[in-house]
Amino acid sequence: MADLVTIDDPDDPRLHDYTGLTDVELRRRREPAEGLFIAEGEKVIRRAGEAGYAMRSMLLSAKWVDTMRDIIDEAPAPVYVVDPALAERVTGYHVHRGALASMARKPLPTAAALLTRARRVVVMESVNDHTNIGAIFRSAAALGMDAVLLSPDCADPLYRRSVKVSMGAVFSVPYARLDVWPAGLSTVREAGFTLLALTPDERAESLDAVAPHRMDRAALMLGAEGSGLSRRALEASDTWVRIPMSHGVDSLNVGAAAAVAFYAVTAGRPTAP
Amino acid sequence: MADLVTIDDPDDPRLHDYTGLTDVELRRRREPAEGLFIAEGEKVIRRAGEAGYAMRSMLLSAKWVDTMRDIIDEAPAPVYVVDPALAERVTGYHVHRGALASMARKPLPTAAALLTRARRVVVMESVNDHTNIGAIFRSAAALGMDAVLLSPDCADPLYRRSVKVSMGAVFSVPYARLDVWPAGLSTVREAGFTLLALTPDERAESLDAVAPHRMDRAALMLGAEGSGLSRRALEASDTWVRIPMSHGVDSLNVGAAAAVAFYAVTAGRPTAP
Repeated sequence: MADLVTIDDPDDPRLHDYTGLTDVELRRRREPAEGLFIAEGEKVIRRAGEAGYAMRSMLLSAKWVDTMRDIIDEAPAPVYVVDPALAERVTGYHVHRGALASMARKPLPTAAALLTRARRVVVMESVNDHTNIGAIFRSAAALGMDAVLLSPDCADPLYRRSVKVSMGAVFSVPYARLDVWPAGLSTVREAGFTLLALTPDERAESLDAVAPHRMDRAALMLGAEGSGLSRRALEASDTWVRIPMSHGVDSLNVGAAAAVAFYAVTAGRPTAP
Repeated sequence: MADLVTIDDPDDPRLHDYTGLTDVELRRRREPAEGLFIAEGEKVIRRAGEAGYAMRSMLLSAKWVDTMRDIIDEAPAPVYVVDPALAERVTGYHVHRGALASMARKPLPTAAALLTRARRVVVMESVNDHTNIGAIFRSAAALGMDAVLLSPDCADPLYRRSVKVSMGAVFSVPYARLDVWPAGLSTVREAGFTLLALTPDERAESLDAVAPHRMDRAALMLGAEGSGLSRRALEASDTWVRIPMSHGVDSLNVGAAAAVAFYAVTAGRPTAP
């Protein structure tokens, strides 16, 4: 069982991992630099552990000790018990999910290493909204995508909000960053993947006509909400694909579009007519 | 051109349609009872007008008069110009999208009337989150669903948040309420529809195996985030369908699941293998 340590000084250095959690800009810089991320709530903490992330510490208020007993028992790191008011003062918000854990990041694999064991890959360009990243990972996991590649300016999948929205799927779908963009896409093509750029452009082929589920290796490229894929990314792709639209609607939200495209490249297999 | 009326008294009765907009419970009761809904921002106001909703009045701050000039010119109702601080005092929030319009509701069609001219229908049970309702309407419009039917306890598609998230799609996909649930589903079946219940239950058939895009008339039943369809609704359906899941993930969020299912019943047509 982990050490239960009661802390009543908000400036205690052992709480450093948890300071200023509502300051997105600060945390976005600090967490990768310090090699940590924050998992929030019982389910997410458990999934992070199962996925092999090492716990640095856990923070919770006294009333949650009983509820979280089995996680505490298994925690391989110190567990800090604090007053809810102190937790709020340190983190900047009311921690209503019971517990926070500071987890150690693992080194990311290279894109090339990921691609050797994948056949269905998501490639995101400039998706810098943590909610969208999380939602896309959740759908990618559910619909059987094997890996995710991120352009250098995509948001951090391990940011607290991304982890939460993904329901922990950021732990189960392996991902890597492409260091140069869009030149790094050549790595994907050289690994035998067809680069499919998802775009509402009318010149694109309809997803169901392209039938990407029959491709041996397919990499589906997604751009950010609103702007979509850049011209340079579109030019670096092999085929433009679009989701057929009705009712004069010009686009789906990026989460819905991603889910439809993942289904089309994975589960939407043809059956006899 | 509409009358531009400057108002500087927050208690002016002409502002009654706009009071307490952040009080969800109040507005949820008031708006249907008073036969109005609120459209927010240029694009949504325009789409509501194009869809045949009559404007009762519009509210904006002086600095938006030039930007919104063409909407004001076409507004068939009084336009109230107010100070931003007064707008915030009346509505309860900072109106940053330029303008609000109070629109008159139209009588809803009956389910039976809607069904005569539809072949792809969404049936929602207990979806009482305004964001989810809006997201589902947006995907339903984009992916070619013809109509939406709502169980009696679904949230209001014309609530401000639903309208906004749907990007105005609540105006373009016709919808009706089923008065009794789930008994009202018999109306759908009698109109020649196969009732497909979307569920993660393992006993359900995989969507791609069922190939609902080949059905003449398909009604896709969706439950609320988390709880899903009720047992009674499942029992009232013809076939249980599920989206194939991977990576040990147990569900998609309701918006993503809906989008995938809409694609499967509309655009996911088979092509020769």
